[in-house]
Amino acid sequence: MSEPACARATPSPAISGGSLLIAWQLKDKNVLIVGGGEVASQRIESVLTADALITILSPARGLHARTKQLIDAHAARITYYDRRFSGPAEIHKMDMVLTALDDVNISREICEMCRKAKVPVNAADIPDLCDFYFGAQIRDGPLQIMISTNGNGPRMAALMKKRIQSALSGTEGGAIEKVGVLRTQLKERAPGVGGPLGRKRMKWMSEVCNIWQVDELTQLDEHTIIKLLDEGWEKDRVPTLDQLKGQQKWHGFRPSQSIPSSTLWLPVIGSFALGAGCTALVFLARKK
Amino acid sequence: MSEPACARATPSPAISGGSLLIAWQLKDKNVLIVGGGEVASQRIESVLTADALITILSPARGLHARTKQLIDAHAARITYYDRRFSGPAEIHKMDMVLTALDDVNISREICEMCRKAKVPVNAADIPDLCDFYFGAQIRDGPLQIMISTNGNGPRMAALMKKRIQSALSGTEGGAIEKVGVLRTQLKERAPGVGGPLGRKRMKWMSEVCNIWQVDELTQLDEHTIIKLLDEGWEKDRVPTLDQLKGQQKWHGFRPSQSIPSSTLWLPVIGSFALGAGCTALVFLARKK
Repeated sequence: MSEPACARATPSPAISGGSLLIAWQLKDKNVLIVGGGEVASQRIESVLTADALITILSPARGLHARTKQLIDAHAARITYYDRRFSGPAEIHKMDMVLTALDDVNISREICEMCRKAKVPVNAADIPDLCDFYFGAQIRDGPLQIMISTNGNGPRMAALMKKRIQSALSGTEGGAIEKVGVLRTQLKERAPGVGGPLGRKRMKWMSEVCNIWQVDELTQLDEHTIIKLLDEGWEKDRVPTLDQLKGQQKWHGFRPSQSIPSSTLWLPVIGSFALGAGCTALVFLARKK
Repeated sequence: MSEPACARATPSPAISGGSLLIAWQLKDKNVLIVGGGEVASQRIESVLTADALITILSPARGLHARTKQLIDAHAARITYYDRRFSGPAEIHKMDMVLTALDDVNISREICEMCRKAKVPVNAADIPDLCDFYFGAQIRDGPLQIMISTNGNGPRMAALMKKRIQSALSGTEGGAIEKVGVLRTQLKERAPGVGGPLGRKRMKWMSEVCNIWQVDELTQLDEHTIIKLLDEGWEKDRVPTLDQLKGQQKWHGFRPSQSIPSSTLWLPVIGSFALGAGCTALVFLARKK
């Protein structure tokens, strides 16, 4: 069914030339990592994050210090074999294979085996052999961010990562966690999938996320969540944190993300006063 | 080999509970999308970005306006069939399957078929059936960013996306493209994989990315790249853009990411002068 496609022109560049960025699920899945060097250690960490069951194949003398640490610290998830990759039997029962080897030819052989067995595979530094690429990653609890330059240099990905991290306060992960708890408890109060109730739930949750600052969301403890559901959801409104704490009257919502104007005006007003003062002194001095 | 793992404790929470964020490669791969509604249209756009060959199964009456537009605009990449999913034969030869249906049971059946056939599958709104999730996405040429909250609410992902976009100038994609071209041309001058030369190349590229502002990198045209390689790489140094343009002497490097101090001092100096002026007027007025 792809013949007609091949016959005609390619789509507008605006909507092509990229990758499909996805969050792959590996909980209790089997992942084979061939190699034990520095790159392998990075792969192990990425895969541990996703709760996979890891098998590492690498002669002991090839193990990076970090790889050794991870093998010791996560014995429950990592099975290590002090030997090289031996053949097709190794990828049997694997859900994903990652190679981090200096020998391009062995990586190529492993990738071909994986393609035949329909096992997703990544070969470090050999893009044309990969079903998928890795990118720069940011992790903050449930919040995960990936930055891909689609093979245009890891340095730029690292720069983008820095730039993005500077825009985050570090409390986002905690806030997302609390919102997740609130969402779960709201679903318990108003169960059911989709429909008008589902839409109402979604709308209310969105308003909470809009009205509450990220730092305020991190304060959603067990007690505050119950109060927010009682005073908010049940009464079809979204109180602010201050309102819940009884520190603010029950009218209107504080605009979200407002910047204290003082930070903008203080230096200007200060300089004005200083200028005025200096000139006044000059005139007063001349009077005498 | 996973038995010992199951028997013991789980790893430290700090390094678990997430997904494996990856950039999946779909160039000229076959992707089946079952459904034609709004969610399906979003899936089609994501998959078009990765240059896949798409097959859509959906009765015409179920097609969202955006889905129709995409089918018409990308006829070269999309093959549309005005009918429902008919059975296992549909996923034959597919490299990925995405369902976006209201009927959970049909999605469940399709996912089971895919798992048997070892075809990666995502079922919209049914996380427990998915091999992978989608997240909020930012695209700027070769730069792709994905934000995942690991199922803790799309609203927070959208908020994070906004926050991240505000930290980007919009010129990053262009800069990354130019850095990619520079990298390719440098590899042509100094070919070979790894080794001391590979390390030297990587170090030089990193210095260029550190010393040049993102906005300056976007000015790397054919002529400037050649000049940068001649005056920089060949002479084992990293000139600034101004140096290349002959607008600056050949000593030292401008510190990267410097903020023009004028933006900080202008309002202060201005206000000082204004304050001085006003007071002067007052005194002069009183003199008369």
